[in-house]
Amino acid sequence: MKQVDVLVIGGSAAGIVAATTSRNFYPDKTVALVRKEKKMLVPCGIPYMFGTLDSSEKNVVPDMVLEKGDIELIMDEVVSVNLQNKTCTLTDGSEIGFVKLIFATGSSPIKPQWLQGIDKENVFFIPKEKEYLDKESKAFAGCNKIVVIGGGFIGVEMADELVKAGKDVTIVELLSHVLSLAFDEEFASRAEDALVARGIKLCCGQKVKEILGDGKVTGVLLDNGEILETEAVVMSVGYHPNSNLAQEAGLEISKIGFIKVDEYMRTESPDISAVGDCAEKFSFITRTPKRTMLASTACAEARIAGMNLFKLSTVRSFNGTISIFCTAIGEDSFGAAGVTEDLAKERGFDVFTGMFEGIDCHPGSLPGTHKQIVKLIASKDSGTILGGEVFGGKSVGELTNLIGFIIQSRMTVDGILTSQIGTHPLLTGPPTAYPLIKAAEMIAIKRNKCLG
Amino acid sequence: MKQVDVLVIGGSAAGIVAATTSRNFYPDKTVALVRKEKKMLVPCGIPYMFGTLDSSEKNVVPDMVLEKGDIELIMDEVVSVNLQNKTCTLTDGSEIGFVKLIFATGSSPIKPQWLQGIDKENVFFIPKEKEYLDKESKAFAGCNKIVVIGGGFIGVEMADELVKAGKDVTIVELLSHVLSLAFDEEFASRAEDALVARGIKLCCGQKVKEILGDGKVTGVLLDNGEILETEAVVMSVGYHPNSNLAQEAGLEISKIGFIKVDEYMRTESPDISAVGDCAEKFSFITRTPKRTMLASTACAEARIAGMNLFKLSTVRSFNGTISIFCTAIGEDSFGAAGVTEDLAKERGFDVFTGMFEGIDCHPGSLPGTHKQIVKLIASKDSGTILGGEVFGGKSVGELTNLIGFIIQSRMTVDGILTSQIGTHPLLTGPPTAYPLIKAAEMIAIKRNKCLG
Repeated sequence: MKQVDVLVIGGSAAGIVAATTSRNFYPDKTVALVRKEKKMLVPCGIPYMFGTLDSSEKNVVPDMVLEKGDIELIMDEVVSVNLQNKTCTLTDGSEIGFVKLIFATGSSPIKPQWLQGIDKENVFFIPKEKEYLDKESKAFAGCNKIVVIGGGFIGVEMADELVKAGKDVTIVELLSHVLSLAFDEEFASRAEDALVARGIKLCCGQKVKEILGDGKVTGVLLDNGEILETEAVVMSVGYHPNSNLAQEAGLEISKIGFIKVDEYMRTESPDISAVGDCAEKFSFITRTPKRTMLASTACAEARIAGMNLFKLSTVRSFNGTISIFCTAIGEDSFGAAGVTEDLAKERGFDVFTGMFEGIDCHPGSLPGTHKQIVKLIASKDSGTILGGEVFGGKSVGELTNLIGFIIQSRMTVDGILTSQIGTHPLLTGPPTAYPLIKAAEMIAIKRNKCLG
Repeated sequence: MKQVDVLVIGGSAAGIVAATTSRNFYPDKTVALVRKEKKMLVPCGIPYMFGTLDSSEKNVVPDMVLEKGDIELIMDEVVSVNLQNKTCTLTDGSEIGFVKLIFATGSSPIKPQWLQGIDKENVFFIPKEKEYLDKESKAFAGCNKIVVIGGGFIGVEMADELVKAGKDVTIVELLSHVLSLAFDEEFASRAEDALVARGIKLCCGQKVKEILGDGKVTGVLLDNGEILETEAVVMSVGYHPNSNLAQEAGLEISKIGFIKVDEYMRTESPDISAVGDCAEKFSFITRTPKRTMLASTACAEARIAGMNLFKLSTVRSFNGTISIFCTAIGEDSFGAAGVTEDLAKERGFDVFTGMFEGIDCHPGSLPGTHKQIVKLIASKDSGTILGGEVFGGKSVGELTNLIGFIIQSRMTVDGILTSQIGTHPLLTGPPTAYPLIKAAEMIAIKRNKCLG
């Protein structure tokens, strides 16, 4: 029987980082990674295979990173795990023994079986599977009209790319705004404006009743009786964690289906960890369970699992999910970190918010200047930053990461107001009106008024 | 005699922020700002008036921000300050009484009088004066060859803009690399590559002996005997603080010429503050005096002065200058925060560094992807981040600000390794190889090897 020190199940972002971190922190250990896919896709790059990139080949994660790290790649599927013997069984019945095992089994698209017509031809999902997506892409090439069901990040990005590829696209979203789990209304409606400007039709606050068609999709029937004619449907209504393998092995699964883990990303069995979309998450801010599935969060968890594998460290533990998102629609970019104002209030926080509308270059007469808006959400009592939202140009991603660091370090409004930044005409907003700091100032003014 | 609660002397970035912060934190107080310039230029935008922007008018700070803030603008010059009577005297002899006074008198270009030929026609400086710069711009229009003396940020940006305007430009720099006070050699030499690729000639490690010409400049004689023929010279060899007015009023001036201030930005006289280029600075990291003159640092000081004007707050005090820079040369951007490796070692720190070369979009096949390199400098004992340097595309400015926040919050390598980020194909590096985190990981690996 083959024997390794560290065995990782799953080869997407979390699996790769779990393996490479194990390698880097425990250079004497043998590390192997089992995955069933021949080629791994860059998960967040998937929507861009339908427009910007001309081939799925351009969205493949090179296996070089595993080779360079001396990580053995086993292309196979683990069909069962024996916790007692510490072995995994592969499809051909062969076994691999391990000292430490990391589940990075990911997630799969939710297929709402209650939805009539879900199994019709040309109803597609967005799994992280190259062959399926290649077929999907081919099918879309022959379609003119496409309906995207679900206006989260995947739905919005898919719609934007399909429009780019010349399709007639409609998004149907159950909630009153797209992206409304990540953004408050001010930002979500800007995203909607950007989508509409790109030629995408929006049906928000609408429930899908049935997918119509005789074998092949011909339309989508909404609850209000309206029929959206279409040749294809993209279902992007969320993902469920791939926790079956762990459950069958006897590991504890959370109420909402995730593998239960502690702050070191260990399951109840200290030699078995779980990371990424399949692992239990709770919010850094609200402390309630979360369903966040982000490659970036997954990698943070994987890094922590890898570092703590053979030696625990309290300063290298995980303290809850912050949820840091960013996306781009045409020239407009959107980012969010932590909680929205709506969620903060819903979960019981008393908050002040500050919002500032500025520019991302300065002076604004410079070519390429984009409007930049920052909203901050802070706890009324302490001034601690709980969340932030950003609208702007290309720098939105890193500015959102900055807000993520602010939240993680439990920085207050005063912390931001005394912070130093660097500014440059071509790269940032002006030093006198840097939107992040001005937004913090607006909260400070509100707090001052109360505190006197 | 006119009487105001808060009087600010100087109307550039620091003056504006000192006045607006006073207004925002003390809404009941009267605030006035005295400045001698009719129109204020965006200080960091000045180089861009020589290429990208077609008129200095496009680089003017709108006075609207003062009007909107109900801040009285007095266009005049303060010729003397009486600390005892708490009055300022203007050019016509009239006086203004104040309760609190803030010096934001800025800095002026150093004119090395020891340099023979410094007074010749077509030798120009870069003061923050619109009329002077308009004349300079006009003179350059008639020149083909221009020599820039001094390869700091202003020199490099001026050179880059002058080349953009079609000039034949040479930079002469005394040190062995341009920008070497902000960057270690790896990054400075990349900046040099970018400058050379743009057609700029570099003479590094060269001292200027004399500026040649019969009345008007014809050449620059170097110490090695070489003569650079030229029709104009830009002197960008640094700035000295405008602290004369404060000194004449009897305020204490530091050994290197800055107005002495405490952590609340107050001079020894608690009703008199000083902020920006004229105010004393010391390093957040090395705790030694600094000459950093950055609009962004100036604004941070001004914000702190304004907030503490009538009520002190320990959490709103200033704890030393971090020096956060960024700049762009063509499509390449460069950023730095905190200390360089060289400076850290020179000042007595025992450090580990980590450097990672990645990309700023992902997958790298996406159009517009730029190489992104991050170097981190951390204290060997604690792993605390002391400095960072970044090379990349448009997101460098905010990524550098992120490193600035990391340094300010005294985050360690472990803090970064457990941090969550957000990533997006079009906006950031990949979650599996985000250069900032990978650079931190390289330091952790080095520390692990030592600690066992």
